[in-house]
Amino acid sequence: MPTTASESAPWTLLEELAESGDAARLKEETDAMGLRDTARALSRLDTETQAKVITTLDPEDAAEIVEEITDSEAAELLAMLDPKQAASILDAMESAGTADVLSLLPEDTVDELLSHMDPEEAEDARLLRQYEEDEAGGIMITEYLAYPEDYTVRQVVSDMRDHSEDYAHYSVQYVYVVDKDERLRGVLPLRDMLLTPGKEIVSSIMIKNPIAVLDHDSLDQLVDFFSDYGFLGVPVTDEDSKLLGIVRRGDVMEAVGDRHQSDFLKAQGIIGGEELRTMPVMTRAKRRLAWLSINIGLNFIAASIIGIYTGTLEQVIALAIFLPVISDMSGCSGNQAVAVSMRELTLGLIRPTEFFYVWLKEGMVGMINGVALGVLIACVAWLAPFGLWQGGPALGLVVGGALCLNTLVAVLLGGTIPLLLKRFEQDPALASGPILTTVTDMCGFFFVLSFATALLPYLVGGE
Amino acid sequence: MPTTASESAPWTLLEELAESGDAARLKEETDAMGLRDTARALSRLDTETQAKVITTLDPEDAAEIVEEITDSEAAELLAMLDPKQAASILDAMESAGTADVLSLLPEDTVDELLSHMDPEEAEDARLLRQYEEDEAGGIMITEYLAYPEDYTVRQVVSDMRDHSEDYAHYSVQYVYVVDKDERLRGVLPLRDMLLTPGKEIVSSIMIKNPIAVLDHDSLDQLVDFFSDYGFLGVPVTDEDSKLLGIVRRGDVMEAVGDRHQSDFLKAQGIIGGEELRTMPVMTRAKRRLAWLSINIGLNFIAASIIGIYTGTLEQVIALAIFLPVISDMSGCSGNQAVAVSMRELTLGLIRPTEFFYVWLKEGMVGMINGVALGVLIACVAWLAPFGLWQGGPALGLVVGGALCLNTLVAVLLGGTIPLLLKRFEQDPALASGPILTTVTDMCGFFFVLSFATALLPYLVGGE
Repeated sequence: MPTTASESAPWTLLEELAESGDAARLKEETDAMGLRDTARALSRLDTETQAKVITTLDPEDAAEIVEEITDSEAAELLAMLDPKQAASILDAMESAGTADVLSLLPEDTVDELLSHMDPEEAEDARLLRQYEEDEAGGIMITEYLAYPEDYTVRQVVSDMRDHSEDYAHYSVQYVYVVDKDERLRGVLPLRDMLLTPGKEIVSSIMIKNPIAVLDHDSLDQLVDFFSDYGFLGVPVTDEDSKLLGIVRRGDVMEAVGDRHQSDFLKAQGIIGGEELRTMPVMTRAKRRLAWLSINIGLNFIAASIIGIYTGTLEQVIALAIFLPVISDMSGCSGNQAVAVSMRELTLGLIRPTEFFYVWLKEGMVGMINGVALGVLIACVAWLAPFGLWQGGPALGLVVGGALCLNTLVAVLLGGTIPLLLKRFEQDPALASGPILTTVTDMCGFFFVLSFATALLPYLVGGE
Repeated sequence: MPTTASESAPWTLLEELAESGDAARLKEETDAMGLRDTARALSRLDTETQAKVITTLDPEDAAEIVEEITDSEAAELLAMLDPKQAASILDAMESAGTADVLSLLPEDTVDELLSHMDPEEAEDARLLRQYEEDEAGGIMITEYLAYPEDYTVRQVVSDMRDHSEDYAHYSVQYVYVVDKDERLRGVLPLRDMLLTPGKEIVSSIMIKNPIAVLDHDSLDQLVDFFSDYGFLGVPVTDEDSKLLGIVRRGDVMEAVGDRHQSDFLKAQGIIGGEELRTMPVMTRAKRRLAWLSINIGLNFIAASIIGIYTGTLEQVIALAIFLPVISDMSGCSGNQAVAVSMRELTLGLIRPTEFFYVWLKEGMVGMINGVALGVLIACVAWLAPFGLWQGGPALGLVVGGALCLNTLVAVLLGGTIPLLLKRFEQDPALASGPILTTVTDMCGFFFVLSFATALLPYLVGGE
């Protein structure tokens, strides 16, 4: 079975067709592959070859593919193209996608690209770039249909028919009705227009004072909104009711998924943005190292506790076997509590101030599991299977007691850290793990080694 | 600032109104709160009180709230109700939600509930329960509109008008056209019906041979599908083209988000399903302990390597300080590689057989970061800040060399484990972490202690 790129690999085909400049055949092959598989194949090529493929296609086809690769790949790719070519691709993309990609490029590149873009598209992109990606303005699209209040149904239908090509990519379930200052006055479901004679004025049949969200509403508020209402989309306005765009249910769900994915990556130490293995090695190494450097620093701090007790350790060398176990297990217990707190914060089930509630609920679990794990490790330490160390009841008591106590510490801390970080507007996914393991390591090492120091006569006497 | 439930807490209000049986006031308050906030408040009550609240509302209102709480909460709650009451709530829920909740209940409870449900709803639920939650059949809804081929546009519009109450919850953007055997023949966008005279026969204006997905198509295939097509929904058929339901874009995006969330929880050690702090303490403790027990077992295996080298450790006690650091840092490096492999698998950028590609890409990063971290820890070990241990160049060489080498091992392993697990159809999110840390711990301990044993004269001579 093939484990590396063979001649038949789809990316090799893309590369060959782009090199030969056979635009017709390339278009045919990418159509046959489908957008997603084309995007995948493209992702396996270096940026220079990607650029050749993309510029061999016409801008509309290129735009569809660029929308499918990750934003960071798209940014790198577009930065490599001739600005005019890049601008024509950006013109053909959905406004929200254009804004996301531009946000990853340096300011002067953005200015140049915007200057080459279609003025209307550039204006949309400028508007969307003002928003964070987790607020309504950053999730909305600016492709929507809005008509003046005095239009008849027939005029609306006739405009839709005349521009059906242009609107083919719009998700038209509603049309919006605006006044002269572009303020949102009403909404018209397509369904209602079906049942209405063409001569009616839209303002007489529209749903007045339609529900809208504000441009700075958060992703959480949007999730709540779509839970409360069955709509597929909702108009977005500024504080003066000016219509800015629409947010679609699917895009909100996708943004939530992206946030979960990003939380997972951050908790695993992939920070500073997406990493794909097609990115340059030095970029990947440097980003990962930034995270690792912080962790090794924290590890040195925790390990220094052991350094204080080398006297005890010299006399009871078996403790050295259990230090990593206690460190790792406390991390595991604490991370479970972190995960539950993050889940409950996401669901909106706890507020960042409810420490006592979390402590009560975690404390009970921590005591049960602390005793269970403590007894288990105590037995192992006492019985010393395979005679790998000098076992005994005192050793069991020391490591069992330490793990029991430290499990409790770990779940109390793990449950609380995400709340604290959230409360101080830090990112719980990013910082919870390192803070947790540093503190639980320090406590764990301290418990084991201070208990051992106190019981030293019994530990050494057992030899 | 309040940190526990105060008198004004929304859940207290729900409880009071349910206790007093004031259905009208309860309905009013929950309407004012919105579905999502009501669901949140409900989640903070114990199951018995939840049951009181839910049965005070009429089944339609109750169903909307039950759809907002998590499936596991909903299952627990419905199991506590009188089966007839539970069935009437299930009847009012969307078919997909009903099936999800039933899948969490014991077989005999399910049978009893189904027997009390509306026969049509029960049939839908039985159909949906056959599918996994990550295939088209498990994500589809059975609320769609289908009409015979020989209907006129007028008949369709008139049926929609007559049943506008019943269909109010349907997301009607398309209607489907079926033959006598319920096989899908065509699809009719509402938009097209707008522009068509009422006397036309639907089969003459419908889009023929419409695109559909199969009931057993995977979530990944659905994501690909919606990337390739701009549709908001797609019909689901069996292999004989029989129309079974529709899958909506938003539901697919939501399922992807759920999977990311579940991956995050599993990687953090929350397994066996959702955990919320309102669940019984023993359930929570037992589930967490199942995971912790496996981990402590693996930890003992890894720590036994240290046991083999206690002789060396006794002579160079400073090594005990660095063992937990090397264990933790290798875990960090390896987890980064795990995260990137999982991300690339999710995006479909690598196949589970591409070991060499991953090794090549990870190997380069591993060597760079291994050298960087190795030099850093070597300097710290040599210089021994604060004099907490006996430093020296030989100690630096041992721990630096070990961390350098083990970082390489960790990223190679971390990059590969998710591919291997995926290839053998195991869950990478669940098992990657424990397997990784066990192997990297063993290797890390072995490198440090075997290097130290080899260089023992220089290490001890430095004293």
